[in-house]
Amino acid sequence: MTDEFELIAHLTRGLSTRSDVILGVGDDCAILDLNSNTLLLATCDSQVEGVHFTRQFSSPEQIGRKALAVNLSDIAAMGGEPRYALVSLLLPSDLPRSYLDSIYVGLRHEAAHYATAIIGGNIASTGKPASLAIDITLLGTIERGRALVRGGAQSGDTLMVTGNLGDAAAGLHTLLHPSSHYPGEAQGVLRAAYRVPQPRINVGRVLSQFGPAIVTAMLDISDGLSGDLAHLCARSNVGARVELSQLPLSASIHAVADSIGYGVFAWALHGGEDYELLFTVKPGNEQRVIEAVRVETGVMVTPIGCVVVADEGMRMVYADGREEMLVVGSWDHLKG
Amino acid sequence: MTDEFELIAHLTRGLSTRSDVILGVGDDCAILDLNSNTLLLATCDSQVEGVHFTRQFSSPEQIGRKALAVNLSDIAAMGGEPRYALVSLLLPSDLPRSYLDSIYVGLRHEAAHYATAIIGGNIASTGKPASLAIDITLLGTIERGRALVRGGAQSGDTLMVTGNLGDAAAGLHTLLHPSSHYPGEAQGVLRAAYRVPQPRINVGRVLSQFGPAIVTAMLDISDGLSGDLAHLCARSNVGARVELSQLPLSASIHAVADSIGYGVFAWALHGGEDYELLFTVKPGNEQRVIEAVRVETGVMVTPIGCVVVADEGMRMVYADGREEMLVVGSWDHLKG
Repeated sequence: MTDEFELIAHLTRGLSTRSDVILGVGDDCAILDLNSNTLLLATCDSQVEGVHFTRQFSSPEQIGRKALAVNLSDIAAMGGEPRYALVSLLLPSDLPRSYLDSIYVGLRHEAAHYATAIIGGNIASTGKPASLAIDITLLGTIERGRALVRGGAQSGDTLMVTGNLGDAAAGLHTLLHPSSHYPGEAQGVLRAAYRVPQPRINVGRVLSQFGPAIVTAMLDISDGLSGDLAHLCARSNVGARVELSQLPLSASIHAVADSIGYGVFAWALHGGEDYELLFTVKPGNEQRVIEAVRVETGVMVTPIGCVVVADEGMRMVYADGREEMLVVGSWDHLKG
Repeated sequence: MTDEFELIAHLTRGLSTRSDVILGVGDDCAILDLNSNTLLLATCDSQVEGVHFTRQFSSPEQIGRKALAVNLSDIAAMGGEPRYALVSLLLPSDLPRSYLDSIYVGLRHEAAHYATAIIGGNIASTGKPASLAIDITLLGTIERGRALVRGGAQSGDTLMVTGNLGDAAAGLHTLLHPSSHYPGEAQGVLRAAYRVPQPRINVGRVLSQFGPAIVTAMLDISDGLSGDLAHLCARSNVGARVELSQLPLSASIHAVADSIGYGVFAWALHGGEDYELLFTVKPGNEQRVIEAVRVETGVMVTPIGCVVVADEGMRMVYADGREEMLVVGSWDHLKG
């Protein structure tokens, strides 16, 4: 999706702004100052049939949940608290009403679970068979001085990630290439990760309490570790070294990869839609951060490398010490 | 578009909410309390090719301007001040880059004119020829106690409207049914009204200063006078009488209607996309309101009838005193 980022950058270059816009286009959320004790966060993201989901691979409830979850993940990536959602639907003419109802069941479920109110609705029909699209704007809040943005990482910081990497991409693989070789339970776990990601709201809240002096930069992994790390490096003007032996990998991804003789690193490095948090921590604070997140949320945090100067670029380090450039893998959602 | 309203009402019925949501789905904007001196307004609306616009009838700049203008009009309809826009684009695969650039020229122009910052961008491609869709969420602010909502009209209030009615629908008619009979200048005026509506932000601001004790209810006319008056009546639990002889009609609409032997009332009563403000005023305040709006904005306000009890329903009164029920005319955008 590099194209999308270039295109947005091109279209939004030199936009006129307002003095109360603290951060505009280019991070997970915009940050706005409404003279309140908290700042307002705003993000929008859409899920388009055939690009981000298919009716074959996911139930309508799952499609609804995921459409909200990917936006919740952007709020999580700032350390914020989600509050309000506006849901815009573009409907093909042949979509059954019951299908739409089920999408809303998923949206309501996800909204209720994250204390988010759906405050606006808009429905347009193309009047012909077309792709179903769900476009959501999500608003949240963050305490002043606590927002974690992409641009604060410095050489020497430790690179960390929540949860496991690659599960969603591996799950999508099992849907795109069905096989009786996949172990059933592992396949189920990976497909669930693909169908309904878990936005890391609670983890984001814990990290925002440390503040940007300790958690120096953060974003969520939607495009894959390599692609999102490249965004973090570009905004912070740094490079990074990723230790491949440290990447957190689930038993399920190993089981499925082994069953078909695949390696796991393509999924873990370049597979999109993990919606885990990738962040950098000032050295010496790693254990405090890991412990706080574990105790307060039960989520595992893993150090996977370190931030280096920009000239070194992005590198990956094999278990034997060998190094290679880490090139951004193209992750083209359903075309991947 | 009655279907759209029913569908949204059905889908959003009994949504869980939050205590800081002052007004949710069902008005021009949601109203949110973020503990600031102003309240936050939020609205979202989309423009879909073939439904709301065609590339044949409007330039890409005009399409961009209108996509933002219809959202600005929703902020105007609460009396608010627009601030931030998030722009989500769904692109057909065959859309030239230059066309997209021109849409953004229109968006930027409109945003700058209304001191609105574009703070978020999202682009999705369907990867195939499809309808171009522009979905915008607009955020604004309104002073506490000043928001003008749809639900406050009471029997005896005077019904008022800004500007002229029916121009946009007549303009669309000249595009759908080209004829050499239309007087050229009048045709130009009407087509401009259709292509780029003028959101009544400044008028809304003046009316919000009177506050809801005087301006008891307000909304913008997007679906046509009859349809939007029905919304106001439903939310306020009142009826209304519209004096046909009082409807503000431009010289241009008369000139075009006369040139083809049409009447003007179908356009004025049921034609959509006027984006004028329709509001109700406590009796005795009409002249103050008309004067204040004229002096501060130069916009004409016209009394067109009165609010009555709900049992009387919506009625239209002919110049000779004859009365008929005012039935909501279906306005199906480009299919109208």
